[in-house]
Amino acid sequence: MTEANPEFMRMAIALASEGASTGQGGPFGAVIVKNGEIVATGNNRVTSTNDPTAHAEVVAIRAACNILQSWQLTGCELYTSCEPCPMCLGAIYWARPDRVYYASDRFDAAAIGFDDEFIYQEINCALPDRKIPTSQFMREEGLAVFKEWSEKTDKIEY
Amino acid sequence: MTEANPEFMRMAIALASEGASTGQGGPFGAVIVKNGEIVATGNNRVTSTNDPTAHAEVVAIRAACNILQSWQLTGCELYTSCEPCPMCLGAIYWARPDRVYYASDRFDAAAIGFDDEFIYQEINCALPDRKIPTSQFMREEGLAVFKEWSEKTDKIEY
Repeated sequence: MTEANPEFMRMAIALASEGASTGQGGPFGAVIVKNGEIVATGNNRVTSTNDPTAHAEVVAIRAACNILQSWQLTGCELYTSCEPCPMCLGAIYWARPDRVYYASDRFDAAAIGFDDEFIYQEINCALPDRKIPTSQFMREEGLAVFKEWSEKTDKIEY
Repeated sequence: MTEANPEFMRMAIALASEGASTGQGGPFGAVIVKNGEIVATGNNRVTSTNDPTAHAEVVAIRAACNILQSWQLTGCELYTSCEPCPMCLGAIYWARPDRVYYASDRFDAAAIGFDDEFIYQEINCALPDRKIPTSQFMREEGLAVFKEWSEKTDKIEY
């Protein structure tokens, strides 16, 4: 494991600034590094691409996985200008890089109007208390597909 | 708000089964509905597209937003064959549909080897206890970009 490298964080922050000032989306940037070399970068593009999932980390993870031709970021480090929101934290856990560094945090993001901290709160709410009403429905039929999966002999696990 | 419609959930489950049996990815499917009509569907494509973010809900949300040319799913309902993982729950909260229905849940997914429940646990871990080491770094430089954003007069908020 290497030490945090200010150069990569400075680049993530510069991407955040550039993406916001050119109207691509919110002020967020990310850089993915492997063996001291940049694999891919990303900045928030939600509003310019009509894609609510186009956060800096997700954009960078998708680009890095495409370049590495892998759904795993083993051996990589992710630098992001702000603490990952729950969506991006989930994406990170599915991509499994070795390490994550962030600069500003969810509370700083909340202070300029972003929902990151709100979503962290919602995740721990019981279903009846969620702001987006959510309910379980037809579990038995859903389980049938999981049984198929568990019996599938040629499945690729991730 | 309409009642949950078994037809849409049955379709989400069928997409899960079909996607898994054709080797596209894990056994997960999703359907997005607006005014009783299907806007877009999705199934898990993680392993076939080398995209760890290509979960059924994310695929469906990206497709629906592209069709509606909006980063918001106002007036839409999302049917998903399994409880959204934290990444997908985050994506849902950023897309803001009116309602979510799911069939099987995070514990059912854990029982067939998926990390959903593990990631829910990690989200509530303090940074030093996280399985993917994560640390804050250069917060002051990160905050400078947020200050630029808060002073930007032509920003598009989301």
